[in-house]
Amino acid sequence: MAAYFAKRKFAILLVFFEAIFIALFAVFTQYRSRSVQTPYETEEAGSNGNDTTLTFTRQPKPKAPNDVEFHYPNFQDVHVMMFIGFGFLMTFLKRHGFSSIGYNFLVGAFVIQWATLVNGFFALAPDGFEKDVEIDIKTLIEADFTAAAVMITFGAVLGKVTAGQLIFIAFFEVIFYGISFMVGTHYLKAVDAGNSIFVHTFGAYFGLAVAFILDKSKVRKGDTKEGSTYHSDQLALIGTIFLWIYWPSFNGALLTAGAGSARHRAVVNTYYSLSASVLAAFVFSQLTNRHGKFEMVHVQYATLAGGVAIGNTADFMIEPWGALLVGAFAGTITVLGYAFIQPAITRKWKIHDTCGVHNLHGMPGIIGAVGAMISIVTVDSMRYGETFWEIFPAIAPSNASDSELVRLQALGWNVEAGDGRSQSAQALFQLAALGSTLGIAIVGGLLTGLLALIPCLDTLEDDEDQLFEDEQSWTVPEEPITSTAKANGVQLRRIRFNDDTDGGTIEADF
Amino acid sequence: MAAYFAKRKFAILLVFFEAIFIALFAVFTQYRSRSVQTPYETEEAGSNGNDTTLTFTRQPKPKAPNDVEFHYPNFQDVHVMMFIGFGFLMTFLKRHGFSSIGYNFLVGAFVIQWATLVNGFFALAPDGFEKDVEIDIKTLIEADFTAAAVMITFGAVLGKVTAGQLIFIAFFEVIFYGISFMVGTHYLKAVDAGNSIFVHTFGAYFGLAVAFILDKSKVRKGDTKEGSTYHSDQLALIGTIFLWIYWPSFNGALLTAGAGSARHRAVVNTYYSLSASVLAAFVFSQLTNRHGKFEMVHVQYATLAGGVAIGNTADFMIEPWGALLVGAFAGTITVLGYAFIQPAITRKWKIHDTCGVHNLHGMPGIIGAVGAMISIVTVDSMRYGETFWEIFPAIAPSNASDSELVRLQALGWNVEAGDGRSQSAQALFQLAALGSTLGIAIVGGLLTGLLALIPCLDTLEDDEDQLFEDEQSWTVPEEPITSTAKANGVQLRRIRFNDDTDGGTIEADF
Amino acid sequence: MAAYFAKRKFAILLVFFEAIFIALFAVFTQYRSRSVQTPYETEEAGSNGNDTTLTFTRQPKPKAPNDVEFHYPNFQDVHVMMFIGFGFLMTFLKRHGFSSIGYNFLVGAFVIQWATLVNGFFALAPDGFEKDVEIDIKTLIEADFTAAAVMITFGAVLGKVTAGQLIFIAFFEVIFYGISFMVGTHYLKAVDAGNSIFVHTFGAYFGLAVAFILDKSKVRKGDTKEGSTYHSDQLALIGTIFLWIYWPSFNGALLTAGAGSARHRAVVNTYYSLSASVLAAFVFSQLTNRHGKFEMVHVQYATLAGGVAIGNTADFMIEPWGALLVGAFAGTITVLGYAFIQPAITRKWKIHDTCGVHNLHGMPGIIGAVGAMISIVTVDSMRYGETFWEIFPAIAPSNASDSELVRLQALGWNVEAGDGRSQSAQALFQLAALGSTLGIAIVGGLLTGLLALIPCLDTLEDDEDQLFEDEQSWTVPEEPITSTAKANGVQLRRIRFNDDTDGGTIEADF
Repeated sequence: MAAYFAKRKFAILLVFFEAIFIALFAVFTQYRSRSVQTPYETEEAGSNGNDTTLTFTRQPKPKAPNDVEFHYPNFQDVHVMMFIGFGFLMTFLKRHGFSSIGYNFLVGAFVIQWATLVNGFFALAPDGFEKDVEIDIKTLIEADFTAAAVMITFGAVLGKVTAGQLIFIAFFEVIFYGISFMVGTHYLKAVDAGNSIFVHTFGAYFGLAVAFILDKSKVRKGDTKEGSTYHSDQLALIGTIFLWIYWPSFNGALLTAGAGSARHRAVVNTYYSLSASVLAAFVFSQLTNRHGKFEMVHVQYATLAGGVAIGNTADFMIEPWGALLVGAFAGTITVLGYAFIQPAITRKWKIHDTCGVHNLHGMPGIIGAVGAMISIVTVDSMRYGETFWEIFPAIAPSNASDSELVRLQALGWNVEAGDGRSQSAQALFQLAALGSTLGIAIVGGLLTGLLALIPCLDTLEDDEDQLFEDEQSWTVPEEPITSTAKANGVQLRRIRFNDDTDGGTIEADF
Repeated sequence: MAAYFAKRKFAILLVFFEAIFIALFAVFTQYRSRSVQTPYETEEAGSNGNDTTLTFTRQPKPKAPNDVEFHYPNFQDVHVMMFIGFGFLMTFLKRHGFSSIGYNFLVGAFVIQWATLVNGFFALAPDGFEKDVEIDIKTLIEADFTAAAVMITFGAVLGKVTAGQLIFIAFFEVIFYGISFMVGTHYLKAVDAGNSIFVHTFGAYFGLAVAFILDKSKVRKGDTKEGSTYHSDQLALIGTIFLWIYWPSFNGALLTAGAGSARHRAVVNTYYSLSASVLAAFVFSQLTNRHGKFEMVHVQYATLAGGVAIGNTADFMIEPWGALLVGAFAGTITVLGYAFIQPAITRKWKIHDTCGVHNLHGMPGIIGAVGAMISIVTVDSMRYGETFWEIFPAIAPSNASDSELVRLQALGWNVEAGDGRSQSAQALFQLAALGSTLGIAIVGGLLTGLLALIPCLDTLEDDEDQLFEDEQSWTVPEEPITSTAKANGVQLRRIRFNDDTDGGTIEADF
Repeated sequence: MAAYFAKRKFAILLVFFEAIFIALFAVFTQYRSRSVQTPYETEEAGSNGNDTTLTFTRQPKPKAPNDVEFHYPNFQDVHVMMFIGFGFLMTFLKRHGFSSIGYNFLVGAFVIQWATLVNGFFALAPDGFEKDVEIDIKTLIEADFTAAAVMITFGAVLGKVTAGQLIFIAFFEVIFYGISFMVGTHYLKAVDAGNSIFVHTFGAYFGLAVAFILDKSKVRKGDTKEGSTYHSDQLALIGTIFLWIYWPSFNGALLTAGAGSARHRAVVNTYYSLSASVLAAFVFSQLTNRHGKFEMVHVQYATLAGGVAIGNTADFMIEPWGALLVGAFAGTITVLGYAFIQPAITRKWKIHDTCGVHNLHGMPGIIGAVGAMISIVTVDSMRYGETFWEIFPAIAPSNASDSELVRLQALGWNVEAGDGRSQSAQALFQLAALGSTLGIAIVGGLLTGLLALIPCLDTLEDDEDQLFEDEQSWTVPEEPITSTAKANGVQLRRIRFNDDTDGGTIEADF
């Protein structure tokens, strides 16, 4: 029995977590009224509930469309990005496809439950946990965003951790993510529509910190399985291109300001930024390659840099040419990251970053945050018209009876009293949010990395048969020999045959 | 000429069907007025049509959005599930990829035409076929749902039937599907938003019945081609994950109750149910595997069980924790089905179920139906507020002048006089619908299986070269050796073989 | 330095283009007011901008949904078609997968920038370039449509051009596309909702003309790498099926007539047309194959012919049976194109059309245009009710004070004074648009083909190592030997090695 469970620590851990999640959901969560549940509060229904006959509260059917209509298409696009996008992007490894897609699937499903709770608790925290966690379509989008941060972290440790370690890392990362997000948005009132700071920068530096703890020694070895094949590289492009296509939905998913114009602008800006990244990726791929050839890793990753970098300014008035500039710059930096910066980091700090998340999420995330600061300081607020205080709530006057504020409210705009910040002050708070996110990510990542090494979890040895290898934890099918070859004589080929039944291996020369 | 057509029975059959379909469409179908066609009836236009000059009916442009806006995004998600989801999910077989995707494509396209007619006729049947079949976006969604049932059946016989047999099976299955759906929804007034009963249970047991007829002897043979490869298993995950992602759209596609809140709730419930299935799939995959390793078939299928099982309760007030529980339970049962139940069924009843549709659709479908009964009996109707009778129309009072009914109608709610059922009675009618569906599926499947063996159709022999093999009916390209380097002589080709064990490399010129 | 850049002409060319694009965007483009930007014009804001304190224009929040809500889901579907659909459809080539997906990605990203400018300029041209190019969601959809034309052209020259040549071809094609579109829609006032004429016919004949210039000699050689593999053919189906699924969004993306009913009809018509193409593809694949087997190329391409051919009539009152007929006919012609017409064209005119774009886009595009003419001439205008002049604006009376026109405007319909054309006259103008498009495509393609041969661009030799081969311009990973086989002591497996050159086969037992 002990021997049986010794090989199944992961299952025990996960049953434990799922049981706790269901219990916490039962105690703390409920549908959000007026959208998910019924159009009107059940409390009101309850007050009429004394009657023995069936009576309803008598509220008219709402005329406004349900929230799900506004957010659902974007939600589904984001969902594709998380599970197809990230999942397939990581299949480039030649012997790690099952784990790349499978663990991404597993971790995503785990995080969306846990993040529902944690994000809900932190959202309530400033008000003192008095209310329940109310769930609606926006909850799901925020849970998916949290999953993105964890998946970025996964990219840094891909092929070097077990499923149990990943679950453990995800569990703690969601908590640190929640802290970072609460500090940045509630206390510092930073804006970050496309999550350049809170998802990309956070996830990347958290991952680098975890990788720093886990991997110090492994990077010294020549891990021959850390490579791609012609097929796996094409499969990975499914991930890349779905991420690229749906990125405007990611950056615009939660934007409601300006009666929809903020989301509209996020779509336009992201579209152009991403298109410029593609061009930059191809240009610098050729420029940095010794033979002037394109490298697939650049096409798989650097084409997406514009989406990361435009995130923070997605709904800003940066104009399409500004978006092109951001995308081209970010794509360039990402290629240079793969070509020059990542090798230096690996050499100097012994951080082995499997997918190069620092190149795609770390640096472009910071570029996005800095770009947003510049835009906030320099923009003429008149460009935003009535929507300026919807987009930058902390810049709105702190006096609730401010005449301009009252006038806008009377006209139907969703503006409230803010902190009366200047644009420069807002930019400094953005900087503070970037700093706090970096700090929480790095400290949280280091701690989490240490926790992921506790003995009750399975770990991988510094062994080429364990790293970047599916057979470690999956039943892998035998390959049929379908290849037929052009041959002009007799040749030898050495193939290893694994016998799953008894573990034996034979080799044949032919 | 006879010899030419002897090999092309499939083409003759299909031309015959398509000609009939076009004729039936021309006679019986038309666009639905007010949405697809023009905003207003052409009859009115016709009444003004006596004039020699061009005159229009003078109706104002409608202010409400066209139906296509509400349903279209969900429709497209469902469409992806049918043709990418089911198609790729079935590519796991190593030598059957062309047939899996290709026949799924073919059968889907065939069914959506035939189902448009059959579903239309059955929907008219209770009123006596007086009207035309009117086509709009909801027609397309219902046709896609019908395709889902047929594709589930396809999963049970995958690799063991010819294209002609599949068309034949699909033709009859659509008719039995229509009967089952009409009995369940029109006469028994069962509710089943996500089609746990009418699609999943029906399709699975229909498929098992067909497989029982077709396959008795074949299962005794060791069919060596019934297996996957490393690549085909990853390709199949494209199907799995798209199904998983878009399942909330499947369960909510046709829900309009509660001014959108029913659909919103279906999205939330399905999302959480599916996430719990993923965790259950990984847990029980490890627990049931002899070596404590994950098995890809569980990840491909059991992760989806929550979507099937939550179908019937998708729009119910089961709360997110209830959804998690349903998903975790269904995922568990599906893995246990693959590990223990399916082998027993094969052994005992000689039913060979290629994809294990009984595990994913059969049992979870029944779980969903039973869960719905429990929820209907136990729920406090006040939880549904004004929308209770929208969601359970047969529970509404039978007296059209009931004061509560009149009051709700005045407030804009879409409620009508019903059957005045109690909640328990409704649950019993749900049970009756499950029973009638099972009966129609099994009897219909047995009959259809016999019809699929008539001599005018091509069949496959119990031969390993015919079963699970594309070459039987497709022109399959020869596989090239893809890693080549130019060698000295034109006829020589140098290939590098890596020996994974010791890192050595041998090269062979041939 | 010169040697370094000699191998990197592509990068220099692309940096040059991107720099110019960003400059042109900065000078000429801006967000479209009222939707992307702020709900109201900034000019008004500017007029209040003299004040030193922050003042807003005091316009109420708009009640109508932002344009992005209506168009965004369709836009994203189209986006998937362009980058996943076209990209993966072209991966069928065994050694050209990186280039097929990668260059499609590159060219798409290039075109959407350039087309934004060119389409914007041409749209302004009739009014004399007085205004800026205003960008909103419809701009993005139109840019994606332009990309479709270029991608179709890419299909004709696939495997025979370098990335630099493709960029060059795309640059000029976008200009000719803009001319053709302006002539057809502004001057001739042809309608073509799904772009049978302006995208499919244009792109195909432009591509054939380019191929005619580039390829004369190459077709004489037996290019052994121009073939597929079992895996690459399945990967290509991802492209096919996503194109197939989302085609209703392509045909309906920009339709706003009839308060949404035109788009609704486009969805229904396209859905049925495509379903009939699938059946026709399978039928004629079997009928034309020597052994009565299905050919994958037919399933990959001819299944889509219904989408092309229904494009021009997508929003017409052709009824579902008409859509089925169009789709079945187009699918048939496409298969016959692959089987008989394409070989004849290659033989006679030395035009080598890699993907067979003439079969899928050329002929079905013309079928669509001709079908539209027939429908326009024959339809009873009363079938369109109030929306007739919305759908055919040039048929509306030229007199702005026409009583019927005024009455419809008062009822809210978007009708304006037109040209007072008869239905037959409109059909003739449609024919003229088809003719002008063919003329511009062929002349433009011939010129562009010549320009793509200028010495400052890299070209490919008539060499089997350069054509249809990724290694020419990509770093391609070596294939590992991943195949492992079950063996039980001394188990032998027979492998067939085919020698493609002389058809010989050797077998090895090991």
